[in-house]
Amino acid sequence: MTYLPRFSLSYLVALAAVFAAVLPVRAAEPAPAQVEQWGTFELALTGPTDGNPFLDVTLSADFSNGQKTVTVDGFYDGGGVYRVRFMPDATGTWTYFTHSNRWPLTQKRGVFTVTAPSKDNHGPVRVANTYHFAYADGTPFKQIGTTCYTWTHRPAEVEEQTLRTLAASPFNKLRMCVFPQTHGTSTMPPTRFPFAGEGTKPDYARFNPEFFQHLDRRVGQLRDLGVECDLILFHPYDDEHIWGLDTMPPEVEDRYLRYIVARLGAYRNIWWSMANEYDFVRTKTEADWDRYFQVVMAADPYDHLRSIHNGKVIYNHNQPWVTHVSLQNGLAVTEPGKAQIYRDVYRRPIVYDEVEYEGNHVYRWAQLTSREMVHRFWAGTVAGTYVGHSEYWVQPGDTSEFVWLGQGGVLRGESAPRLAFLRKVMEDGPAGGIDPIDKWWEPRVGGKPGEYYLWYFGHEKPTSWPFQLYRDGIAEGTIFSAEIIDTWEMTITPVPGEFVAKKKDRYSFVDAAGRSIALPGKDGIALRIRRTGGTQGEISDKPPGY
Amino acid sequence: MTYLPRFSLSYLVALAAVFAAVLPVRAAEPAPAQVEQWGTFELALTGPTDGNPFLDVTLSADFSNGQKTVTVDGFYDGGGVYRVRFMPDATGTWTYFTHSNRWPLTQKRGVFTVTAPSKDNHGPVRVANTYHFAYADGTPFKQIGTTCYTWTHRPAEVEEQTLRTLAASPFNKLRMCVFPQTHGTSTMPPTRFPFAGEGTKPDYARFNPEFFQHLDRRVGQLRDLGVECDLILFHPYDDEHIWGLDTMPPEVEDRYLRYIVARLGAYRNIWWSMANEYDFVRTKTEADWDRYFQVVMAADPYDHLRSIHNGKVIYNHNQPWVTHVSLQNGLAVTEPGKAQIYRDVYRRPIVYDEVEYEGNHVYRWAQLTSREMVHRFWAGTVAGTYVGHSEYWVQPGDTSEFVWLGQGGVLRGESAPRLAFLRKVMEDGPAGGIDPIDKWWEPRVGGKPGEYYLWYFGHEKPTSWPFQLYRDGIAEGTIFSAEIIDTWEMTITPVPGEFVAKKKDRYSFVDAAGRSIALPGKDGIALRIRRTGGTQGEISDKPPGY
Repeated sequence: MTYLPRFSLSYLVALAAVFAAVLPVRAAEPAPAQVEQWGTFELALTGPTDGNPFLDVTLSADFSNGQKTVTVDGFYDGGGVYRVRFMPDATGTWTYFTHSNRWPLTQKRGVFTVTAPSKDNHGPVRVANTYHFAYADGTPFKQIGTTCYTWTHRPAEVEEQTLRTLAASPFNKLRMCVFPQTHGTSTMPPTRFPFAGEGTKPDYARFNPEFFQHLDRRVGQLRDLGVECDLILFHPYDDEHIWGLDTMPPEVEDRYLRYIVARLGAYRNIWWSMANEYDFVRTKTEADWDRYFQVVMAADPYDHLRSIHNGKVIYNHNQPWVTHVSLQNGLAVTEPGKAQIYRDVYRRPIVYDEVEYEGNHVYRWAQLTSREMVHRFWAGTVAGTYVGHSEYWVQPGDTSEFVWLGQGGVLRGESAPRLAFLRKVMEDGPAGGIDPIDKWWEPRVGGKPGEYYLWYFGHEKPTSWPFQLYRDGIAEGTIFSAEIIDTWEMTITPVPGEFVAKKKDRYSFVDAAGRSIALPGKDGIALRIRRTGGTQGEISDKPPGY
Repeated sequence: MTYLPRFSLSYLVALAAVFAAVLPVRAAEPAPAQVEQWGTFELALTGPTDGNPFLDVTLSADFSNGQKTVTVDGFYDGGGVYRVRFMPDATGTWTYFTHSNRWPLTQKRGVFTVTAPSKDNHGPVRVANTYHFAYADGTPFKQIGTTCYTWTHRPAEVEEQTLRTLAASPFNKLRMCVFPQTHGTSTMPPTRFPFAGEGTKPDYARFNPEFFQHLDRRVGQLRDLGVECDLILFHPYDDEHIWGLDTMPPEVEDRYLRYIVARLGAYRNIWWSMANEYDFVRTKTEADWDRYFQVVMAADPYDHLRSIHNGKVIYNHNQPWVTHVSLQNGLAVTEPGKAQIYRDVYRRPIVYDEVEYEGNHVYRWAQLTSREMVHRFWAGTVAGTYVGHSEYWVQPGDTSEFVWLGQGGVLRGESAPRLAFLRKVMEDGPAGGIDPIDKWWEPRVGGKPGEYYLWYFGHEKPTSWPFQLYRDGIAEGTIFSAEIIDTWEMTITPVPGEFVAKKKDRYSFVDAAGRSIALPGKDGIALRIRRTGGTQGEISDKPPGY
């Protein structure tokens, strides 16, 4: 089950960018004269080292382009260096002006130019069209996620291997933890901790800048690979509470949140995930989670995406601070009819960030075949939702616990190329996203009424499909083409001829010539149907079923 | 498809009670000296008739038993009669004291005795055990609902026929509208309207007491039959807005809500449903629906159950004023794996009040077979949720639109006896309700871990089931009995012998002798498995799958 990465030109270019970004720790340096839109402008200042700069020194800066002013917090980066980072969202001339309770840091001012974004920079990802995502420049973001919880806590060569794997993968979003986890520490123990002091005896009053500098760098490398970083701020995977990162006092938690937002908020690829399996963090209450959201929201001037991921107990994602829904529920994506349910409930994008994992683990949550993983992506996709991948493949005799889910490295499953294929199908689909067409009556089909239909048969194995579509958006004579998609073999086979819509009954249209489409009678077959001519019909505002 | 009501002794007794309750409109009369707990104490007072008593006169009363005081609003009932109704929740001596802005109604005081509730009076239904219901005295309430939207707007003989049908039915909850609906008016037009003036030209400043007296009486008759009244306060079924009941000014809406709560809040069988298909009421916004909940909650000292029912758009049932979730989504109860999803999301009882209807309607929302209706009840039940019935069977050649859903009368479908059978199974089940056992891994089984399992195979037709249960609550040697339930034929067949639990793997126990259960290979088969001996095992607090 070895996955062979395919090396492409774009991969090699991206990889070069990754290594170009590996820089030594910097001291205070002159502010840049220009930065691209949605890039990170960084102001580095030399300031006091006496006392405890993390607690004693306040620093912020106002950034203005004459039309609006954005105030952002700075942070102490160790060694007498203070930084303020800013992500401008418009081109032109911007100025800054600092505020501090210490003289050397206050009333610093300057001017810089924001240039147009470079080719692969589309800005931060936002919610679009209620259930979907788009970059700030309007480019649709079709999420194909994966999870590597603690890849940034591994030896440098492993971390670089993970980046190479990602560069060759279809994944455009990665879930990862700030804090280390117990799993996998026997062979690759963490060497950096977020606080000063020993890893097991943290000094909560002082951050460890080196820890965060490393994290910044890795997040920046993901950005340069075009990978969104869904950063998990808390998690329950410190099994014996040895590091004390799930038992911090509330004021330390809030300081940590503000510190990481000050450091990473200016990275356009950041998403904030309050937790993984929040309800398994037994030391916190639901009110704590509400508070974390509010602290992050107040600190982040860019309004990056915010979510929280569940274990057994689902958070109230109807809370106003939740931008999209990050769910664990593998059963929900076994078919589109289940997957769609959360959409209506939350009226936000639904991301199934954990649907069980591919693998051969002794635990049942990581025993999916690669085929089933691909199936779950397709089931979620036609339901108008998004799905996340990870894997836990253990090599025979390997006791190192070195698996993609926890540590990164290489992919061993067979789903990744199929997910690349799916991503291409999604990117060729409606810009506004795929939505259910007739949600409580025919969940197997999603798309855009009258324009585009993606019909997924899942584990059914039909040998024929009588051409029939729900009435919305279709008129007599609307013309469609059809293609048969084999989701595993990654083939798209056009069906000869065209289909001309003819009203069948109150609800549906069929082909005027009464044609059916012959199907291969196997698992994982989809149909793609697109309008190629004729006029569109109206989309009814009537109650369902009338 | 004619349903034949079965006449039983209890039915005849109940029916006698119904007709005993048909009393002429009363003038002010002496307050009763005693009333049973959760009965309705009614104080009738003679007061002013000048001006507009609905707007000009305020009336309330404090009821106290020395330990607590409950303040309830009175209402004008026409003809110079003002009433204050009160539902005491404790036995003993209670006093009342009135307040009014008019002299004849104020400072009235009195004493009465509250006796123990009579045999079939268990008090109002409340949420119990998060996902379930119980009467105030602790008796579990196992909901088997039906819907007759506007049965109280029909000729007296039809309304009485509806009551006889209910008396012989399994239904212990009825959804019904306050307002008339357009459907079915051609043959049975409404003759009473809630406001003075013509039906199509309401005088919003004056209620029509006769309308509400009729409604009170019918709700009381349901109470006497043991049927909870899920009273729908607004609906979209005034197709041309001819009655103006969906276009009232906000202050009239609020006054209407307070008036109906003052009249009916003291009926123990009342549930408040803000709407049917709320989102199809195009004249209102979501903020209006939030407000209605808040008005009702503020007016109702008894905290009766509150819900709202959707068309296409699901309300935010996570709002704190929603006591349980009233859903339309037929697809969700086609299998337990879908049905359970809303439980986690809302952490409240889930009632699928509309799952499509039995019938032969031209519209697809009323084309279920009786078998499919029974199936949906079972699918919802093992998922730990509750389901509602209604039917729309049109007789050949009948153009009267006289169907149970809208008008009441008789049941023509075949599901009712099967739902009576299911209700008996539910009542014989765990008092605290049926919950999923292993929710995201085996949704076909619900019950109580280690004690009781109801496994429903739905449209599968297995011929054998290898005895295997999830680990929670089971230990080595726990002994179980099993029965095969045919949900359509209404038979319960014991499986000979017993099953002795033996650990199979990390997750499950099987029978020590390796036994399977032979099944009849047909649709709609369930298994009931109950612990008969041995010790129970622990219920794990571990994350799922560990």
